[in-house]
Amino acid sequence: MEHIQVKRPTLLLDEVKCRQNIAMMREKALRSGVTFRPHFKTHQSVEIGRWFRGQGIDRITVSSVIMAEYFAADGWKDITIAFPVNLPEIDAIDRLAGRVRLNLLVESPEVIGSLSRGLRHPAGVFIKIDTGYGRTGVRFDEFARIGSLLDAVSQSPNLEPMGFLTHSGHTYQAESADEIRRIHRESVERLKQLMSRFQEKFTTLIISAGDTPSCSVVEDLGGVDEIRPGNFVFYDGMQTALGSCTDDRIAVAMACPVVALNPERQELVIYGGAVHFSKERLHDSRSGVVYGWGVACKSGGWGDRIDGMYLAGLSQEHGIIRLPRRLVDQYRVGDTVLILPVHSCLTASCMKEYMTLSGRTLSKLR
Amino acid sequence: MEHIQVKRPTLLLDEVKCRQNIAMMREKALRSGVTFRPHFKTHQSVEIGRWFRGQGIDRITVSSVIMAEYFAADGWKDITIAFPVNLPEIDAIDRLAGRVRLNLLVESPEVIGSLSRGLRHPAGVFIKIDTGYGRTGVRFDEFARIGSLLDAVSQSPNLEPMGFLTHSGHTYQAESADEIRRIHRESVERLKQLMSRFQEKFTTLIISAGDTPSCSVVEDLGGVDEIRPGNFVFYDGMQTALGSCTDDRIAVAMACPVVALNPERQELVIYGGAVHFSKERLHDSRSGVVYGWGVACKSGGWGDRIDGMYLAGLSQEHGIIRLPRRLVDQYRVGDTVLILPVHSCLTASCMKEYMTLSGRTLSKLR
Repeated sequence: MEHIQVKRPTLLLDEVKCRQNIAMMREKALRSGVTFRPHFKTHQSVEIGRWFRGQGIDRITVSSVIMAEYFAADGWKDITIAFPVNLPEIDAIDRLAGRVRLNLLVESPEVIGSLSRGLRHPAGVFIKIDTGYGRTGVRFDEFARIGSLLDAVSQSPNLEPMGFLTHSGHTYQAESADEIRRIHRESVERLKQLMSRFQEKFTTLIISAGDTPSCSVVEDLGGVDEIRPGNFVFYDGMQTALGSCTDDRIAVAMACPVVALNPERQELVIYGGAVHFSKERLHDSRSGVVYGWGVACKSGGWGDRIDGMYLAGLSQEHGIIRLPRRLVDQYRVGDTVLILPVHSCLTASCMKEYMTLSGRTLSKLR
Repeated sequence: MEHIQVKRPTLLLDEVKCRQNIAMMREKALRSGVTFRPHFKTHQSVEIGRWFRGQGIDRITVSSVIMAEYFAADGWKDITIAFPVNLPEIDAIDRLAGRVRLNLLVESPEVIGSLSRGLRHPAGVFIKIDTGYGRTGVRFDEFARIGSLLDAVSQSPNLEPMGFLTHSGHTYQAESADEIRRIHRESVERLKQLMSRFQEKFTTLIISAGDTPSCSVVEDLGGVDEIRPGNFVFYDGMQTALGSCTDDRIAVAMACPVVALNPERQELVIYGGAVHFSKERLHDSRSGVVYGWGVACKSGGWGDRIDGMYLAGLSQEHGIIRLPRRLVDQYRVGDTVLILPVHSCLTASCMKEYMTLSGRTLSKLR
């Protein structure tokens, strides 16, 4: 594929990089002696899921019941839904629990009661712990509350207490790799402290943690029992900005046709808007608000970022690319530009499928 | 439907308000003596399209070839693709031009040349004019350039010069209804000036304009020949903030299950995230960044905004609702909350279907 040319906004997937990302994280988990339960919310594709399976992975994480059903239908047998139990879906959850080894997240006695009454099939239950992110979960130091949740779970014949699960999403606000490491260390310490309080009474509990920034920059992930990173499968420009990856690990890029030129303003208009990229954005000290970064077309994929070329605006279907004056004349209407997304999870969720660099289409949950 | 209860994030549609919005805009177009060619990119639904048809509308606007194909398949015969011609889709454009009366947008001689050579079927061509928004189009005062584009179109046997088309998207940055009116007046003046230059030579040209803010706040839309608003079919919180509508005209609301409570932080966690709402946001002087506003459940739909209750954060599947202390104890896990979206076009585009208040599912382009 010398020059990538697309008809419509197309999410390109570099299969080699993606499989390497999977292998690298799997090896780090092995080295660290922790279970690797990757989060599949980023790719949402049974085909990419099979690349994990080909590397020996047999446990996964998802973020909705729909996603659990989708992957269960492809033969996944051990699934954690890392999202607070959505009680209106309890019948679907029960059906899933009858088909696969299912783990759920709880943080209140009411939900445990509803699961206890509403599930006919057995399910594992993690207590969702907030180690500092402040989105969901019980605060790590609310020992009495956590203890009573564990008691309630263990008293339900159909529920098995699995342990403590956290998502240290505050690593996404970190200013440096060192700060990511500090947040990870702090989270692990807090979870270990919790564990030390309850492990005599509940001997089989585990600690499940692992956002992509932590799992990427921390060398030894020991201290937890299980990691659940998701974004690493593709990485993206936000992860590069955080220091979780280098650009050469980013496995997806949007390919978009140029539909108009504005040489005076040093802009290209592309077919590719908020409905394709999502409106996730980053502030860049040099460029202001950025929705993506232009990369060079290269034989067999894409190359480095093109200095000064970025996605500066998004309407529903339009994108505005800013670029340096020296490049303005190199583009024609109908050409394809390649753009690294800010947040690959959201961009992938907007798109209906992937196209590999060898031109193969990979389906995903829609 | 006394208390709306949903299993998953659901886009509710108030059919009565929606049909009224259509009727009000249609009547204003009639009163103003302008053609009404509504933009269907907001709803993207053949069923909602038929409500327009039921009110006598037979010309529509869309923003992609895919959308044109989707509506052509439902019998629409006169379609303007209000997006710069995407040359890689020229074969699909030609097939469409063979089935329906098709209008295209151009702003460069290269694209006119490609259409002239590439289309076997006739198509109407608008010159896209930039009256001040600065996204796409030829500047309104580049008379020589506009003249040569018109000449090139008229010299192509398969292309018919239709006129000047603009989208005054800068009304979305307006600070008041008066500023919207001023922008609209200025755009119309600029287009009329353009028209006066070319109407002797090209006697059938029309002016096509009309973003939702202008079409909503300007009483008499005469001065242009055709209006193409889209968002008005649903309106949204951004339009209320702009002064284009009042909340009681907003015809869509997201219904989301509550999955966790954080009374200490005065927060609810809902199943409903960036993949459902989109990450469109507004800055509110009181609340900061806002992704939506809580509204009261009401028999037969929803009522007013709940003061101080808003969507303050979005992850992929999670939303964080902030609410006043007095309301914290009124919610339970499993309850449904209703939220007015910031930008209904993007929220609708994220969602796969609508549910009317009588429980009927309306399909849309996916």
